[in-house]
Amino acid sequence: RLQPQYRLVDADSEGEGSDSGDDFFLRRMRFYIEGTLTENIYGIWQVDFGDTSEDPEVKDAFINYSGLSAGEIQVGNMNVPYSRELLTSSKRQQFVERTVVGDHNFGVPDRQIGILYTAAPSDVFQVAAGVFNAGLESDLDKVDFESRVSGDPDYFGKMFAGRIDFTPLGGFKLAQGAFGEETKFGLGLNGFYWDNDSDAGFEDFEADSSPEGEYDSVTGLGVDAAFRSGYFSADAAIQYTNAEVTDGTRDFLSDNGVTDGIGFVNDEGDAKFMTYMVKAGYMIVPSKLEFTAGFSALDLDDGYRDADGTIISDDMDKRYSAGLNYFFNKHDAKIQLTYEIGRDVLYANDANGQVINPAGIGEDQNTLFLQFQQVL
Amino acid sequence: RLQPQYRLVDADSEGEGSDSGDDFFLRRMRFYIEGTLTENIYGIWQVDFGDTSEDPEVKDAFINYSGLSAGEIQVGNMNVPYSRELLTSSKRQQFVERTVVGDHNFGVPDRQIGILYTAAPSDVFQVAAGVFNAGLESDLDKVDFESRVSGDPDYFGKMFAGRIDFTPLGGFKLAQGAFGEETKFGLGLNGFYWDNDSDAGFEDFEADSSPEGEYDSVTGLGVDAAFRSGYFSADAAIQYTNAEVTDGTRDFLSDNGVTDGIGFVNDEGDAKFMTYMVKAGYMIVPSKLEFTAGFSALDLDDGYRDADGTIISDDMDKRYSAGLNYFFNKHDAKIQLTYEIGRDVLYANDANGQVINPAGIGEDQNTLFLQFQQVL
Amino acid sequence: RLQPQYRLVDADSEGEGSDSGDDFFLRRMRFYIEGTLTENIYGIWQVDFGDTSEDPEVKDAFINYSGLSAGEIQVGNMNVPYSRELLTSSKRQQFVERTVVGDHNFGVPDRQIGILYTAAPSDVFQVAAGVFNAGLESDLDKVDFESRVSGDPDYFGKMFAGRIDFTPLGGFKLAQGAFGEETKFGLGLNGFYWDNDSDAGFEDFEADSSPEGEYDSVTGLGVDAAFRSGYFSADAAIQYTNAEVTDGTRDFLSDNGVTDGIGFVNDEGDAKFMTYMVKAGYMIVPSKLEFTAGFSALDLDDGYRDADGTIISDDMDKRYSAGLNYFFNKHDAKIQLTYEIGRDVLYANDANGQVINPAGIGEDQNTLFLQFQQVL
Repeated sequence: RLQPQYRLVDADSEGEGSDSGDDFFLRRMRFYIEGTLTENIYGIWQVDFGDTSEDPEVKDAFINYSGLSAGEIQVGNMNVPYSRELLTSSKRQQFVERTVVGDHNFGVPDRQIGILYTAAPSDVFQVAAGVFNAGLESDLDKVDFESRVSGDPDYFGKMFAGRIDFTPLGGFKLAQGAFGEETKFGLGLNGFYWDNDSDAGFEDFEADSSPEGEYDSVTGLGVDAAFRSGYFSADAAIQYTNAEVTDGTRDFLSDNGVTDGIGFVNDEGDAKFMTYMVKAGYMIVPSKLEFTAGFSALDLDDGYRDADGTIISDDMDKRYSAGLNYFFNKHDAKIQLTYEIGRDVLYANDANGQVINPAGIGEDQNTLFLQFQQVL
Repeated sequence: RLQPQYRLVDADSEGEGSDSGDDFFLRRMRFYIEGTLTENIYGIWQVDFGDTSEDPEVKDAFINYSGLSAGEIQVGNMNVPYSRELLTSSKRQQFVERTVVGDHNFGVPDRQIGILYTAAPSDVFQVAAGVFNAGLESDLDKVDFESRVSGDPDYFGKMFAGRIDFTPLGGFKLAQGAFGEETKFGLGLNGFYWDNDSDAGFEDFEADSSPEGEYDSVTGLGVDAAFRSGYFSADAAIQYTNAEVTDGTRDFLSDNGVTDGIGFVNDEGDAKFMTYMVKAGYMIVPSKLEFTAGFSALDLDDGYRDADGTIISDDMDKRYSAGLNYFFNKHDAKIQLTYEIGRDVLYANDANGQVINPAGIGEDQNTLFLQFQQVL
Repeated sequence: RLQPQYRLVDADSEGEGSDSGDDFFLRRMRFYIEGTLTENIYGIWQVDFGDTSEDPEVKDAFINYSGLSAGEIQVGNMNVPYSRELLTSSKRQQFVERTVVGDHNFGVPDRQIGILYTAAPSDVFQVAAGVFNAGLESDLDKVDFESRVSGDPDYFGKMFAGRIDFTPLGGFKLAQGAFGEETKFGLGLNGFYWDNDSDAGFEDFEADSSPEGEYDSVTGLGVDAAFRSGYFSADAAIQYTNAEVTDGTRDFLSDNGVTDGIGFVNDEGDAKFMTYMVKAGYMIVPSKLEFTAGFSALDLDDGYRDADGTIISDDMDKRYSAGLNYFFNKHDAKIQLTYEIGRDVLYANDANGQVINPAGIGEDQNTLFLQFQQVL
């Protein structure tokens, strides 16, 4: 898939320098190989050359064994069985970018290296569970999961994750938008527990401008729902994330005078937050033009703290989105336009560094996304 | 295309350390995907793993829509419609390396991310025009365009570019060398205007050893011609580039005592130069062995200045080249030998860092290029 | 080929911090293009996206010309004709990792850019010889060859290398393990001489924690043997490496008070060592389950020296290995388990940085490797 994207950010920031800027870049450019040379063994290997980093990123890279009667086993780098928004491919999303419930910066595991078992005891139930070697970034103003292969995580731990899907009217594809489909409904429950394996120490980090440290454990729980009927589709999700810093980080922070919390972390050393999403779309011109609208939010239990432990925003980060998608050939060739209104944001969009003074914590910003897509 | 290249540089430099050296490296190693899944929509995505950088570089990566009666629209990363030398693929060049009229270091836009419209109202005329998000490097001893995806440009701006081709005897392929062809003649006019969008400030640069700063605007104008007949081919081009630094750069330079210009920039803050090229080839053994010869030059209007603003060379950089190309299978499999005599050079070849003391400004150097090529 | 690998290291180290750790990562993920568009000209280009580096590495990337009656010529990046362990693909190895006789850290040339001539005057003899632009890393606690394209060597030189294969019962494939094969025997002699071309100087290096300097010349000599019969296979090899530092390095070291040698280098400025390997495997369940066992060793002539020139270990680094390989489809789909017992080690395995306190020089460590493999 190739996704040239134009992005225009207009923030409402205090301070000096322009608070708006734009960029035109390749959001994704993905090469892949897939296939089988052996009965019951299938593989797919993907590399992404897009985005503004010069390094390519390995995406799906796993071996799937379907020789068991009771289900399938997958080994390698793959999406952890968590939120539906994450599991739905970036080429089949209704908005140009995933919302916060699919964002690896905020407690969503993303792809990790591990082993996954999937079973489908009936058309109505599907179960998946796996164990992973999952990495995290050392920033304390998020809970940012990174794979061993994509990016360069600062520390690792073991992750146990599982998801149950209930589809009473029969299974359906992980794709947003409905191209004249039968009525279907899906409900998903998912959760994970991640535990720091303490292999690498906090001393190994390089301190940078953002608050840094190491989480000791992270727990995530979520529920999501999807509805498809004719040319109408709707999705919703709620997730809860609970992370706790290590004793080493606590000591390091208090040695540096940080005793009242910092970033997402409260004075007890915990980062707790909820994320919410609802979105829907209707094809005004069947299979050609879709109107979409949605809302997503990030709500910190105990507010966002600066380096002095002062709560600088206790509001919920809110994103109101609306857009139009034009399909030349379903998701294989389309143009997407999304306009996002962000209020009291806890994380800013700086158009890949092109905004000199992006929105600070609790400020507002509006973003226009225009994306072209071709799948090969 | 795979291009293993041997390069031997012998400069005539003052100062200590050897002024010669050689390297054997992979000049290009290019993977690509191309195709179509949708009527009127075609895409090509290329990545280059060659050269001595460890990072791969995205090359062509665009979506082409040919569903309009009046022409084609292309979105993504592509060559800006400028000089014929640039637009002619590296695998169809007569010398091992492009001459200065196709060199992104000297005011040639190279590939950029944008939108291009191409029309061919007749077999005799072709018109292309586009708008691009074009990046530049911060060096003031060149005018070096870089794409958002390849390399890592220091700052960006909007570029408007266009090209008109006049081919009175009918259109012909963008390829140097003639394998027994009908007589054809082409004349091209091209131009661009680039305007700094001021998103990122000069303060963001890291100063390094070369003179640094930011251009405010760059204008380029060129004319080129091509002739093919039987086993003879000839090409020629002239280009004029005019760049002006930003007020911020002017202030920065004068704060650091630079008031008489630096590098390519004169005391009024302008970098102005002409580039010239003429080359020709004849197949001594038809479709097997070609003899080539050419001349190219870079002429700064106001000379090259050191950090004190003293003009250290007011001569034209001249390159006299001759070579032999042996074709196993046209451009799909060939061996190319080019010998280049450089006089009063304004930019040196250091064999990828293997020459300890390469030619300084205004000194001489000779370079032997030997390149093997296979296209897959 | 995709190789997800789990690695568990348990060292017996003195000092603080855990001496064990594990990692689950993608050892290799290799894309390739191969083919021919021209009679007698064949090419293969490979890129590896695996391992923990973010940069992809170019592997095989050469053009092969078979139009001569007397043999074949190959130009590009390819394995130097040296040890059989090196020349045997990583996907056809009996243990998860190559032993020391195929390890580029210890005097084995690996892939380099150059020209290779191969002749097979009969089914019983095969001869290969080539000249290469070969790079080295600046560490003096190894003799570490790196290609111009993979990694980033610190300095370069010319390498002349050759190998003779004697296969009295007829040629056979470079693959370990025997899937019910005719009895075959192979004996190989190989050697190389590398000479520093002095293009880049020692002053160009960045000093880091390991002892650094530049070798002036390296000589390598080896002999290896392979036996295959039915479901039994065995391999053995002995190699001798002799390297000498440059005068510049000698001066640099003595200026810094190092006169009694450092790392692999003795007080005369020489690094000399032998490497040994023997391994065998038998298919307990034909073509399905193989039991393997082996021994490999690295023996420094004059011991390993610390920064004061004191010999801190004069013992041979010994590795005792045993394992099981389960084949779904020969080398196209398999799972490999190797357990390695390391005694008096001269180089440690730190599970990609996940062991805080890995084995020091002369200490012990045990490593478990579990690897899944699929070839596409």
